[in-house]
Amino acid sequence: MTTQQLVAQIKQKKSFLCIGLDVDLDKIPTHLLEEKDPIFAFNKAIIDATHHLCVAYKPNTAFYEAYGIKGWKALGKTIKYINKKYPEIFTIADAKRGDIGNTSTMYAKAFFDDLGFDSVTVAPYMGKDSVEPFLAFKDKHTILLALTSNKGAFDFQTQTINGKEVYKQVIETSTTWKNAQNLMYVVGATKAEYLAEIRQLIPDSFLLVPGVGAQGGNLKDVCKYGMNKNVGLLINSSRGIIYASNGDDYVESAAKKALELQKQMAAILIK
Amino acid sequence: MTTQQLVAQIKQKKSFLCIGLDVDLDKIPTHLLEEKDPIFAFNKAIIDATHHLCVAYKPNTAFYEAYGIKGWKALGKTIKYINKKYPEIFTIADAKRGDIGNTSTMYAKAFFDDLGFDSVTVAPYMGKDSVEPFLAFKDKHTILLALTSNKGAFDFQTQTINGKEVYKQVIETSTTWKNAQNLMYVVGATKAEYLAEIRQLIPDSFLLVPGVGAQGGNLKDVCKYGMNKNVGLLINSSRGIIYASNGDDYVESAAKKALELQKQMAAILIK
Repeated sequence: MTTQQLVAQIKQKKSFLCIGLDVDLDKIPTHLLEEKDPIFAFNKAIIDATHHLCVAYKPNTAFYEAYGIKGWKALGKTIKYINKKYPEIFTIADAKRGDIGNTSTMYAKAFFDDLGFDSVTVAPYMGKDSVEPFLAFKDKHTILLALTSNKGAFDFQTQTINGKEVYKQVIETSTTWKNAQNLMYVVGATKAEYLAEIRQLIPDSFLLVPGVGAQGGNLKDVCKYGMNKNVGLLINSSRGIIYASNGDDYVESAAKKALELQKQMAAILIK
Repeated sequence: MTTQQLVAQIKQKKSFLCIGLDVDLDKIPTHLLEEKDPIFAFNKAIIDATHHLCVAYKPNTAFYEAYGIKGWKALGKTIKYINKKYPEIFTIADAKRGDIGNTSTMYAKAFFDDLGFDSVTVAPYMGKDSVEPFLAFKDKHTILLALTSNKGAFDFQTQTINGKEVYKQVIETSTTWKNAQNLMYVVGATKAEYLAEIRQLIPDSFLLVPGVGAQGGNLKDVCKYGMNKNVGLLINSSRGIIYASNGDDYVESAAKKALELQKQMAAILIK
């Protein structure tokens, strides 16, 4: 998917919501456990009820890998379902991969070619030759961890290299890499005040922003500091939507929560 | 597996060789492609021919994920085979994972519980709460990326934070984390001269050292600067061993290359 298609979808749906499909079998309604593939059954129900309110889905691969082959199959079925039934949706494999050149190419093939995702999250620690193999794929997007939403972000990301924070150094350096136009960045909503400075470095890039809701991030602040002329934001909510209820009304509850966020986004877009 | 068991195995086999099982279907002998599971068939043959010469196997997960469900199944069969037939061998999932707390726990479950690996490689960028969930598993080991063997290591890892290189900051900070005794570190053989200083920070920790052979690292230099009283090194070779030949003699050629390295290691250990 091209960035232009993503922007068009955002404008059409008046939403820049991304829903995190982080399926934990201990948290989904127990009746689903009788299904042949409970993870996919849960995802399908959530997707069918929310696809018109969001522009992206983001399964975090950890939740699928934890269930072994069954989990990996459910991930494949989920992405195939989205790509077939809702091809306008932008898909993100939240995998936080990254390895030396040839090995990163294997990861890129796994997520872009084999599974068919539009994008994958990648960790920057190993530098240029660990990220450029992902960037080589046309109309695929590499979402680089810049400033994450967790406490541990202060351990290294906000430390200063020659007077410049590590995450800023990561962003600046990454803009010089080959096919840098295929980069997006992860910036946690819990650090909204950092967004103004980040926007000076990468005014045009899309930012994937986790941490609104359960983790305490504020939508208005994120938009105030992070929005650009093409919106340029994908705001992720996972638990706040998919686990809004674990009763028989889990689908309606998830849709209701997604609608609340979409309405807030529409109001911001209209301003 | 405990560190003591690993050390005992090293002393018994006079080897601290780790073999990287990075199976690329384009590089294995073509007759194996007729097998039902070519990846596992290749791994089984290599393992049976080299298990007495090495102390660890390290499949890089990228190579398995690139083949989808088939690859993931082959990874599961490979680790199960090693654990059953050669339980003395230390196993490393070279996965370079890392995510926020709860999600890292899911990854730890995937590799430690579901697949049954002794250890997993983890990226440090997201800090303490992304790594500690892995450290919570008893007799399991978390191998933190410190200074990697690729060129991109110079992009961020060797930059200085308050006069101290990022990789040193990562190592120092990590030693303060809960259950830090379960940490090992990745240090590339291509940067052997850095090992002396690294040993001052972590004199007792095991180091996983990739990059000997194909990437140009030198075994003697690595041992000179990196060895400690318990050896403290796992030297990895992947392509140099498993692709020593792609003809009918691939098994014998791999064993021969492994034996060469084991002999060099035995000579160093005897000194």
